[in-house]
Order: sequence, then C-alpha cells, then structure tokens
Amino acid sequence: MFIGKVTGSVVSTQKIESVVGLKLLLVQAYNIKNGRLEVTPRTAVAADTLGAGEGEFVLVTQGSSARLTDRTKNVPCDAVIVGIIDAMQEGTNEVYKKQKD
Amino acid sequence: MFIGKVTGSVVSTQKIESVVGLKLLLVQAYNIKNGRLEVTPRTAVAADTLGAGEGEFVLVTQGSSARLTDRTKNVPCDAVIVGIIDAMQEGTNEVYKKQKD
Amino acid sequence: MFIGKVTGSVVSTQKIESVVGLKLLLVQAYNIKNGRLEVTPRTAVAADTLGAGEGEFVLVTQGSSARLTDRTKNVPCDAVIVGIIDAMQEGTNEVYKKQKD
Amino acid sequence: MFIGKVTGSVVSTQKIESVVGLKLLLVQAYNIKNGRLEVTPRTAVAADTLGAGEGEFVLVTQGSSARLTDRTKNVPCDAVIVGIIDAMQEGTNEVYKKQKD
Amino acid sequence: MFIGKVTGSVVSTQKIESVVGLKLLLVQAYNIKNGRLEVTPRTAVAADTLGAGEGEFVLVTQGSSARLTDRTKNVPCDAVIVGIIDAMQEGTNEVYKKQKD
Repeated sequence: MFIGKVTGSVVSTQKIESVVGLKLLLVQAYNIKNGRLEVTPRTAVAADTLGAGEGEFVLVTQGSSARLTDRTKNVPCDAVIVGIIDAMQEGTNEVYKKQKD
Repeated sequence: MFIGKVTGSVVSTQKIESVVGLKLLLVQAYNIKNGRLEVTPRTAVAADTLGAGEGEFVLVTQGSSARLTDRTKNVPCDAVIVGIIDAMQEGTNEVYKKQKD
Repeated sequence: MFIGKVTGSVVSTQKIESVVGLKLLLVQAYNIKNGRLEVTPRTAVAADTLGAGEGEFVLVTQGSSARLTDRTKNVPCDAVIVGIIDAMQEGTNEVYKKQKD
Repeated sequence: MFIGKVTGSVVSTQKIESVVGLKLLLVQAYNIKNGRLEVTPRTAVAADTLGAGEGEFVLVTQGSSARLTDRTKNVPCDAVIVGIIDAMQEGTNEVYKKQKD
Repeated sequence: MFIGKVTGSVVSTQKIESVVGLKLLLVQAYNIKNGRLEVTPRTAVAADTLGAGEGEFVLVTQGSSARLTDRTKNVPCDAVIVGIIDAMQEGTNEVYKKQKD
C-alpha cells in the first residue's frame, strides 16, 4: 500500500459500464523523510468506498488486490482506498495525526 | 488508475491474434502539481473501447484489471481506457474541464 | 521482493472490513550500493504477521503474491512482510548483520 | 503496453524448463516527446513469437497479461511482444513509420 | 523480465512458512546503454532454483508470473530467476559473454 492524500475528485460520464457509479478520487502519493510526510510527484486516481474527504491521508492498494472489495469486484479498477489514516508513528515521533472534526 | 491525455494512435498489422481489431492509442501520463495538470515523460499504449479522441483526458487502468472489459477479456493487454474525463476538481479549484464540442 | 526497514506503524480505524485487525507497518525501501545499504525515497505500507519491530530489516513481497499468506488471503493488500532479515552478504563482505537483542 | 525497440537477443542455456525454447529479445523502452520517439534508460527482456527483428519498434505487454498468448501460457514470463509497430501518429504528425524492406 | 547480476544472498530465519527453504539472492538490476551493461540503483531479492552464483547475470521474472515454477507455486514470492545468461548480443556487438569456469 502507499500513503496518499485525497486532493480532489474526477468526473467522467463516458465510462466502462462496470465503473459507472464508482467514486473516483485524486490521490497524491506521499513518502516519509526524516520523520515528516513528503509529497511525491505522483498523482493517482483511486476508487473510494469509505467516504474519504479532501485533505485526508489514506492507504491505497494497487493491482489485482484493488479488486478485493465488495464494490470493486470484477471491475477494471487498479487502485482502491482501503483505509483512512488516523495516525502514523515512528518510535516516539508522531509523523501524522488526523485533526478531529 | 492514472490520468492520461490521448495524443495519437498506433498501427500494427503483425499482431498476436487476440489483439487484432483492438484500437490502440498513445496516452501521455499526467500528474497534478499546484492545482495544474503537468505532463510526465511516460508514454503508454492503451486499448480504447470508448471512442476517446486526440486531446481528451482519460483514466487508464493497468495490470490484470485491464482485462476486465468485454473487449479485453483474455487478451494480452495491460492498459485500457476506462473513462473519458469531463472534469477534475481540487476543492473549489477546477483543475480541468473538458471543452464542449 | 525488496529490502525494507521497518520505521513505524499506521493507525487506521475506518477501513475496508477485511483489512480490520491487519497490522500495518511503515517500511522504508533500501538498495545496496558499493556493498552498503542505501535508503531510497520510497515509503511503503506493508502487512506484518511476523512481529517485525522498528529498526529491523525485512523482505517485502508485492502484488498478488502478497495475498499468499494465511492472514492476507482474499484481503485487498498488495504488500506483506515475508521474512525478517538476519544477514546479507556479498561475497565475503557482510552488508548487514542483525544485532542480537 | 509500452513502446520498445528491439536491440538484440539473450542466450541462456540454463533455464526454468517451461522457458526453454522461448525466444528472448532485448527491448529498449521509448517514450514520445514533442512528437518524436525518445529513448529511456530502461532495458527489458521480452518473449517474442512474432519474429520481430532488430531495429523494429514493438508493443510490449507486461505482467500477468504477458501469459495470455499460446506460447507463454503457464510460463514464468512477465513481458511479451504483442505487436510489431508499422506507424505511430499524433494528429497529422507522423511520429514513426516503419521502413519497407 | 529484467537483467540482473547476482551480488549476494539473504539470510532470514523468521519467515512465512511457505518461504522457508527458498534460496533468496540479492540481484542488482542492469540496463544496456550504448552497447554496454550499465548498473541501475535498484536491488531486488529473487528466489533461485537454478543454482545461480555470485557475479552471474540472470533473467528475473516479476509479479504473479514469478509463482509459475515448481518451487514458487503458491508461495508469496514476486521475483524469481528464470535463466542464467550466457550471452547478450546487439547486432554484431557482444554486450556480454559469460566467462567459462
């Protein structure tokens, strides 16, 4: 899985039929360097079934494993959000902690 | 999925039999940086069943998931266009909006 | 497989159901250059079933093969720790040797 | 699929049994930039069943899809040439046209 | 497949059960540039069933195809050596020729 930040959404009306209705989000990939999140150049589009919102950090699963959710089964989808991240720690260092609403 | 722009097409007469008749497009991969689309060096060749045209932005699915369309089933194809993009938003910022014909 | 160093962990309460209970670790990818381990920019999140601890070097399997453990079967997981590394050698050069507890 | 140029061949006598007899070619990956083919650093080895020759541009399929040809079925092969390219166009610009023999 | 050079080995006692007994080698990935082998930064760990030795150039298959050998079937392994390279040619140029023992 990779760490991503939801930055936006994609609208597409002309789609492969099985993809219709699938919520598609823009996800910017992140690495961690020296205990801090660092943005990478990569922008992916991932399916979302968890209701992830803009600005949230998420875990993205790629490849055939992205089809192992109820909603993406048999769908030509290669990236899906499998978790909304609450926190990331390195030892006692708190790399990230989600702000409460 | 990744964001791509259709830039052209590929002609190949000598092909694996199951690939014959499959429309193959040149797709340039894009990322989003500071709210704007940014071209990457990567050029992919993707199968198209949606009638995507040159200049349009599309969503491309890779890997085994690229075989999950009626036309690419059991075909040695690892990239397929699953949607033609109408718009991409980041919050209130409109990253891309397709021009009407 | 790639060489990774466990650097931390990820907490996520809102998850795809089959991922619930899966231990998710931050893993920094490494290469070897001139006989020494060299950190790469890439940070992955991998499932762990071996009890790997922070600071340990591990082997990470990606893709559909990451689902071939008892715990990750049918789970939308694309990276799993398959071994904790004790040592790496290049000829007579000891690239890495795990410190005893 | 990616665009590749056949640059040579690989000889290997000690092989996994199912790979024996499979023709293995060196393929240099290419992108397109400003309407021209541009070589990338990446060299792949791909199975060939079409009789591709040195200097020819080809389409290469990767991953599990590379096993979907008669010759590569059940073979531990992750890249196969699925087409010999005759031409590539971007609008009215001819990016590449194969020379007649 | 990619071209790799066996540079060493990995020792790991704490492993996923199906991986136990699998020989794991350090493989440095190579490209070819201007007719010569050129090392890349990437270090992979690949399963070996052919008895490849340090210093030898090998072909490595990745992904689900890496499980298509007798030894790696159903094993969470994503890279396997499928051939020991004897020679690589580009036209009349000999890129590599294995030294006889």
